[in-house]
Amino acid sequence: MKRAHNFSAGPAVLPVEVLEETSKAVLDFEGLGMSIMEVSHRSKEFDNVVVEAQKDCLDLMGLDQDEYSVLFLGGGASTQFLMIPMNFLKNKADYVNTGAWSKKAIKEAKFVAQCDVVASSEETVFNYIPKDIKFNADADYAHITTNNTIYGTEYHQIPDVGNVPLVADMSSDIFARQLDFSKFNLIYAGAQKNIGPAGVTLVVIKNEWLETKQRDSIATMLDYKTHTSKASMFNTPPCLPIYVVGRVFKWIERNGGLPAIQERNEKKANLIYDFIDTNNDFFKGHAMKEDRSLMNVTWNLPTPELEAQFVKEAREKYNMTNLKGHRSVGGNRASIYNACPYESVETLVKFMEEFMKANK
Amino acid sequence: MKRAHNFSAGPAVLPVEVLEETSKAVLDFEGLGMSIMEVSHRSKEFDNVVVEAQKDCLDLMGLDQDEYSVLFLGGGASTQFLMIPMNFLKNKADYVNTGAWSKKAIKEAKFVAQCDVVASSEETVFNYIPKDIKFNADADYAHITTNNTIYGTEYHQIPDVGNVPLVADMSSDIFARQLDFSKFNLIYAGAQKNIGPAGVTLVVIKNEWLETKQRDSIATMLDYKTHTSKASMFNTPPCLPIYVVGRVFKWIERNGGLPAIQERNEKKANLIYDFIDTNNDFFKGHAMKEDRSLMNVTWNLPTPELEAQFVKEAREKYNMTNLKGHRSVGGNRASIYNACPYESVETLVKFMEEFMKANK
Repeated sequence: MKRAHNFSAGPAVLPVEVLEETSKAVLDFEGLGMSIMEVSHRSKEFDNVVVEAQKDCLDLMGLDQDEYSVLFLGGGASTQFLMIPMNFLKNKADYVNTGAWSKKAIKEAKFVAQCDVVASSEETVFNYIPKDIKFNADADYAHITTNNTIYGTEYHQIPDVGNVPLVADMSSDIFARQLDFSKFNLIYAGAQKNIGPAGVTLVVIKNEWLETKQRDSIATMLDYKTHTSKASMFNTPPCLPIYVVGRVFKWIERNGGLPAIQERNEKKANLIYDFIDTNNDFFKGHAMKEDRSLMNVTWNLPTPELEAQFVKEAREKYNMTNLKGHRSVGGNRASIYNACPYESVETLVKFMEEFMKANK
Repeated sequence: MKRAHNFSAGPAVLPVEVLEETSKAVLDFEGLGMSIMEVSHRSKEFDNVVVEAQKDCLDLMGLDQDEYSVLFLGGGASTQFLMIPMNFLKNKADYVNTGAWSKKAIKEAKFVAQCDVVASSEETVFNYIPKDIKFNADADYAHITTNNTIYGTEYHQIPDVGNVPLVADMSSDIFARQLDFSKFNLIYAGAQKNIGPAGVTLVVIKNEWLETKQRDSIATMLDYKTHTSKASMFNTPPCLPIYVVGRVFKWIERNGGLPAIQERNEKKANLIYDFIDTNNDFFKGHAMKEDRSLMNVTWNLPTPELEAQFVKEAREKYNMTNLKGHRSVGGNRASIYNACPYESVETLVKFMEEFMKANK
């Protein structure tokens, strides 16, 4: 199998070892004579998959199993945009607007109750992360989007929210680096960027917050307690996607955990950012330097025609895929998630140089 | 690979050919150098997967692509229990209570507005399907559960609801037989019983109904129009589960479509029901004869101890799994969905005879 250099923003590249394990488990899971897709979600074998994945998740986060619940839900992060206010927005909540996904989260919060946008970088096409934000001390919670896939920005400092419960959409940088996860009351992430395939969303929630601050009268499937009370198995969960997420967690652990992952990610990001900075008369980075994402690198070329040509040649010459920027910012984008090999970034930077020389 | 005889109620047995196709696609999808889990959901290759699956679904149903929309959503049928009333319950709706899943659907409808239970078989532990039901002519819709996994009952005639829009949960018998699908305004089915793995729910909806009768002011992800307006691709869908469902649709088509599937299913069901009827002093069928399910066969043995022993011996001697009945009815259950081979049912009936002789 000749692997593509896959720079997709999500669904995205996964570790080859995980693909191989999954391919086998699809045919026969643990010698049971059944596929991982065919075993009952109530079987002890599948229960082990879920329990292990929950434990590994909290281990990676450095959080205590008695204090946090780990859920694997369907419906994507987009469903979390609604569930969070449905469960916790009683009076008002603070949201920071750092991009398209923040805006979607804000829209759903406003559907439920008052939502204050306490800071925004929209006026400059979200090319930075707002600093020194004043949060409302009486907000039910504050919501941030830690990494912004489309614009290539990322929080490098978690903002100080005082005693306000902090909620974060980490869909595009979960487990990309070391982080003090204990600062958050709720963390959620669609799996399909950094920890698995599409079809499952990770939710980590502080039990005490759920016990004491939840709203009343929530529809069954939107109620976090429905899921925490059944250890994420209230109804049939997305079994295969959960299995894959569990294998990715093991892969992270085998490869040195978050410290080693962060080091690898910084090495990859530095390689491409250093090249862009050195050649900023041709490659114009979209994000401000201090807020640049470890995961999504965004830039523009002198003309839209060159940007399109870049995408086309990259695919034809080096089998590099998904280098087109999101339509809302244009340009090019390379997503270099955890499972993206260093060699893919090397190949990309080599081609960037070649392309610049031919077209400058 | 030695295959188990898998009688799980869901997640359930899948066609071996589909497992083989999926196993390969997990390593490399269509020679792209990327897994089916790694390709962008916005790529033309994945778009083809979705469009083909939508077309094949309507072809199997004999429905017109201009009149119906096909969605592949996350969150399970349990989320549909809420979405249906959120979208269509303005004044009141009629529900028929034929089991645990009907009850859950009723609970969510009551959460939204008035819900009339127009018939129920609860008083006899759901061992039959109510007949000659009087539906309210002014109901916003009528809801039925076509097959009841836990109790082993199934509608063999679709009830006459007059002009009231008919909605059906077909999770456990979708595509098990020929049916006049045009009688329904909305059909939904969790995939993990008859058409795929857990993690995706099929929704087929009559466009005209959605256009003219939808409620106002629905949260984004709960609004069917959010999904129909983007051809089921509003947010990242559960890509791998959708791929598998598409392969199952092709497998149904290759094997003669619904007429041939129905014939196979009847042959399997007859084999086991005939045996039970002949030996009804030892095997006591739970469901009334005229309402018995093609998909889930339920029975009791003279004692709970014998029932437990049956499950244990079946597994140890013949690698037959998941023959324990649901806790709410006890006894034994064999789920014999589309992909369950005739040989598995033969093996089961052979063992039933052997077990009876040894324990009667």
